[in-house]
Amino acid sequence: MNILITAGGTSEKIDNVRSITNHSTGRLGKAIAETFLAQGHQVTYLTTPQAVHPAMESNLTLIEIETTKELESALLTQFKQQTFDGIIHSMAVSDFTTETTLSEDIFIEKLADKLATESDLSDLTNLTEALYRSLDEIGQTIQQAKKIPSGTDRLLLFLKKNPKIIAMLREQQPQAVLVGFKLLVGVSTEELIRVGRSILAKNDCDFILANDLEDIHGDQHKGILLDAKGQTETAQTKNEIAQLIVNKVEEKWRNQ
Amino acid sequence: MNILITAGGTSEKIDNVRSITNHSTGRLGKAIAETFLAQGHQVTYLTTPQAVHPAMESNLTLIEIETTKELESALLTQFKQQTFDGIIHSMAVSDFTTETTLSEDIFIEKLADKLATESDLSDLTNLTEALYRSLDEIGQTIQQAKKIPSGTDRLLLFLKKNPKIIAMLREQQPQAVLVGFKLLVGVSTEELIRVGRSILAKNDCDFILANDLEDIHGDQHKGILLDAKGQTETAQTKNEIAQLIVNKVEEKWRNQ
Repeated sequence: MNILITAGGTSEKIDNVRSITNHSTGRLGKAIAETFLAQGHQVTYLTTPQAVHPAMESNLTLIEIETTKELESALLTQFKQQTFDGIIHSMAVSDFTTETTLSEDIFIEKLADKLATESDLSDLTNLTEALYRSLDEIGQTIQQAKKIPSGTDRLLLFLKKNPKIIAMLREQQPQAVLVGFKLLVGVSTEELIRVGRSILAKNDCDFILANDLEDIHGDQHKGILLDAKGQTETAQTKNEIAQLIVNKVEEKWRNQ
Repeated sequence: MNILITAGGTSEKIDNVRSITNHSTGRLGKAIAETFLAQGHQVTYLTTPQAVHPAMESNLTLIEIETTKELESALLTQFKQQTFDGIIHSMAVSDFTTETTLSEDIFIEKLADKLATESDLSDLTNLTEALYRSLDEIGQTIQQAKKIPSGTDRLLLFLKKNPKIIAMLREQQPQAVLVGFKLLVGVSTEELIRVGRSILAKNDCDFILANDLEDIHGDQHKGILLDAKGQTETAQTKNEIAQLIVNKVEEKWRNQ
């Protein structure tokens, strides 16, 4: 099979020296890649410079990206060149990217200026609508600084939503067996399964690997693989998760 | 001499899976440590897990931290145990740490509620003061989420100022030859020197290494070392900067 794996965590620039980064180590993605490679499959591996990388071999193509925007464009380039039988999207993609950064003083000055032009702020509905309009204008119009000024006591960072990569994967490669990932923090197993199912349905995935940060300790890594029929299987280590995903993707591909 | 070096860049948690990180690689700090070690000095090296580390040897003590708060407490612990003859503070310390994270909806709801209790918002001065009070309350009272909610189009991150580590170094170790660092982005040499001098004076440093991100390309690294007498010396590579700092610190120490 021709497999695409994304792994690691994207980062989003705040200024020239700072980023918002996602801590994902890429170790689960590496285990999944190595398990597919051991079965003789071709793997295209999209990851970040910070993440751990699978050992190089002839069946492996490695591509590095940093931001969600770069990920999106690298994926579109790949989809023009290749058709994938399986896509394992384990990369932790930033939901948000930086829109603008302001000192408290400048933010308040701009917000007060905008609100001052509004007619009736004593009405809560008017006030709320004015705040939405003002925040929108402030977020969209201000250029990003080369380096955040350090002479202010409080900074406000505006973050805006990134495109959802997972939705694009299904759209671009409808034939592929698609495995999505969902990481939550400190929820019950029931909640984890509930959220995983809703993401599976929403993004038309074949499988979702649902896991909780509090159940990940080195190689001990509890993961619940959900399929579109509502079945679940649980693995307890990164290697078990990798093997489970490889088996399920192979099986699903054979039966398509 | 007994030398303390800080190197790499601190990171500040946004939630359990995301941080604001500073990109500093720690390569200049490594070069400085290795140059001091080669001269037979004792080095305590405070860095981050992400930064490159000098090769281990018997005269080197390595300590890892991640956040500015951890850096501060690791330094205070060291200062109880050791007296340093030289301190090279090359670590890129986050000026800001996260205070709170809010979706646009919740931010606007809270801000509108607070503003609604104010008497006269048609007056710009009143409005501005009300905004300062409201932002202060919103920033300070809201607990941090375990994981940022992804179901919002815009997020607002409140960041507040971190303690200034450099000021504390001089206060705690008045006998040490103190070298501070200042990184700017895309400024003229005159501006770089002007800012460097003001930081040297403000923090009572013996030297400031002033550099510009746009003059750093791998090992090519332009650095201007300023001293308290107003003299400057320029180096063009990381190794030249390291050698210059070691020479100047040794000389200053001998003449004290």
